[in-house]
Amino acid sequence: MIACPVLSLPNLNSTASTSEPNSEPQARKLKSSSQLNRWSRARAIRSGRKLDRSGNQSGQAVAGVKSPPPPPVHFQSTESSVSLETEKTSDGVEKTAGKSIYMISDGTGWTVEHSVNAALGQFEHCLVDRGCAVNTHLFSGIDDVEQLMGIIKQAAKEGAMVTYTLADPSMAESAEQACKIWGIPSTDILGPITEAIASHLGVSPSGLPRGAPGRNFPLSDEYFKRIEAIEFTIKQDDGALPKNLIKADIVLAGVSRTGKTPLSIYLAQKGYKVANVPIVMGVELPKTLFQVDPEKVFGLTVNSVVLQAIRRARAKSLGFGAEVRSNYSEMDYVREELEFAGRIFAQNPAWPVIEVTGKAIEETAAVVLRLYHDRKNRCSMPRISKRY
Amino acid sequence: MIACPVLSLPNLNSTASTSEPNSEPQARKLKSSSQLNRWSRARAIRSGRKLDRSGNQSGQAVAGVKSPPPPPVHFQSTESSVSLETEKTSDGVEKTAGKSIYMISDGTGWTVEHSVNAALGQFEHCLVDRGCAVNTHLFSGIDDVEQLMGIIKQAAKEGAMVTYTLADPSMAESAEQACKIWGIPSTDILGPITEAIASHLGVSPSGLPRGAPGRNFPLSDEYFKRIEAIEFTIKQDDGALPKNLIKADIVLAGVSRTGKTPLSIYLAQKGYKVANVPIVMGVELPKTLFQVDPEKVFGLTVNSVVLQAIRRARAKSLGFGAEVRSNYSEMDYVREELEFAGRIFAQNPAWPVIEVTGKAIEETAAVVLRLYHDRKNRCSMPRISKRY
Repeated sequence: MIACPVLSLPNLNSTASTSEPNSEPQARKLKSSSQLNRWSRARAIRSGRKLDRSGNQSGQAVAGVKSPPPPPVHFQSTESSVSLETEKTSDGVEKTAGKSIYMISDGTGWTVEHSVNAALGQFEHCLVDRGCAVNTHLFSGIDDVEQLMGIIKQAAKEGAMVTYTLADPSMAESAEQACKIWGIPSTDILGPITEAIASHLGVSPSGLPRGAPGRNFPLSDEYFKRIEAIEFTIKQDDGALPKNLIKADIVLAGVSRTGKTPLSIYLAQKGYKVANVPIVMGVELPKTLFQVDPEKVFGLTVNSVVLQAIRRARAKSLGFGAEVRSNYSEMDYVREELEFAGRIFAQNPAWPVIEVTGKAIEETAAVVLRLYHDRKNRCSMPRISKRY
Repeated sequence: MIACPVLSLPNLNSTASTSEPNSEPQARKLKSSSQLNRWSRARAIRSGRKLDRSGNQSGQAVAGVKSPPPPPVHFQSTESSVSLETEKTSDGVEKTAGKSIYMISDGTGWTVEHSVNAALGQFEHCLVDRGCAVNTHLFSGIDDVEQLMGIIKQAAKEGAMVTYTLADPSMAESAEQACKIWGIPSTDILGPITEAIASHLGVSPSGLPRGAPGRNFPLSDEYFKRIEAIEFTIKQDDGALPKNLIKADIVLAGVSRTGKTPLSIYLAQKGYKVANVPIVMGVELPKTLFQVDPEKVFGLTVNSVVLQAIRRARAKSLGFGAEVRSNYSEMDYVREELEFAGRIFAQNPAWPVIEVTGKAIEETAAVVLRLYHDRKNRCSMPRISKRY
């Protein structure tokens, strides 16, 4: 058996909830800084909550768990600190450097993963230089309490924090109580928003994860619309089938390497049928581009220096010949082509032109959809509204 | 100006934070049920928090806001109830039926949207029959406090609840305080998890939204890997370029309409290079499919009755002729083709076969990735690990 990225561990089904973990949880050493303290205080004061999460809180038995894992009684001194460097444990298993975040879900786990990723974006300043390396571990489809307890036990051993999305209130409760007993910092990602929506609607949540037998509506019309949008968008990619531009919700136009394809795909995943039309100097654009509703056409532009760098890398990776490469990525050509695109955009003033330099696809998509919905709804407050 | 889906409203910049809203917020009528009460109590007891969110809490001035909006002093009786039916306000603007959820973000807003959608999945039992119709409104790129206050003011008028992801602590604080003052239920989606990660890492968050000037690392290597994966996956779609199967991370094989294309695209968005190979009776499969590492090949199968229904709808929408249609979607043919695929799967026992009937693409993707990472890491506990 090859070593796991963090720690190999015994088969869950035979050990979960019934025996003590092989080694005791590590004591937590919290690196603290005055900056963190200031920030924590500010948040604690604002929220009226306490930040303190010291381990080993005395807890009651976990509700819903037949045999709760015993709380840690003592700590092994050999494992008493969380090291940021790779080290080998006594059984030769390599432990990966960095702190761990466990993400547990009774469904796909994409919501907890998405939220943790977004929150980690707030720590890029230290993640990039590995000053605070982080390992995330996603456990999806966790639908019984034994599995859940096994994972939380492992989190305790590893000194990880635990985040979870568990629709079944008794599972969520078990997770919370077990983390309390074991002194593990934990966050219920969807609990608070589900609770707030329940109050707002005056309706209680189903408590069933997606795909559970009691859930009767797994695939909605909106779902099939999204699938259709993806298929449409792939077929229309890179100027294919210009006759069908009329059927698109959104049309993207721009020179090569402005991110039209990944942007189209991202928007398609959100349910929009997207066509993209490449602007190439000397190649006539399809007439249909000027016949469709100009409010659905978006121009993409990018800084010429950045574009040249991207194109050079691209030409190299595709193994273009020297002649093609110079045409494609030389500065004069890049500038001229961007100017050519600029003239087309100027002739079509109803098309918004979006500068994509340094923007992630997700960010450009947000701008496109904001404009798309603004124009469609003529609201003075930019918003994207949906009905459920 | 065409009517907005909910309410048209005056230009924000001229009115936000400086004048009272045009009409006062509506009194909240909370539909309550004994089921909801039981559920709320259970959660409140578990979390040690109070569910009570009654409006008009006396609040202090909003920190970080130059001139906080005055708290509502009185309610107009003409707008005092939240109706679930469409109605017209005095200025002829149509109000949409259902309760509103405002989603405010200083970035793209995809995290708050994703979380609210996931939470709404818990209310499908009443959303489907419109027993509790919901309208969501996404406000992305909200980076100044005046805009923020304008939106919260509008939420108050509309009787909406507010959810937000705001990286800047003073913006988050302003939102929280304003919602308190105005008696609006509000949820900070990313605050708790960011706070927990800060404690865990011993590092304070940057407080800067993605793309803000102080953020220097907008596009990581992982980001470019994802873009590359999307481009690879589109090129490989539907059996194109079988020579390149070797370069794929994941290969999907299945008969037509088992969801290979949207599943490939979804996995590509997560950074995996995916190739998909259609299984068609009478058509030889590419030899490379049997030469690549069998651990990266996944078979997809589906219930024959469901497949026939999907294919019939597909054939109709594509306008297939009668002969093609019968071959493609007649029951005998569908069954035979599935059996043909089944024999290929049986001959390649290392390929896991996933039954996709009734599964959303996201759910199948979760299964594929769980198996993919399990096999790669040989962990006894199924997890998907990543380093940051």
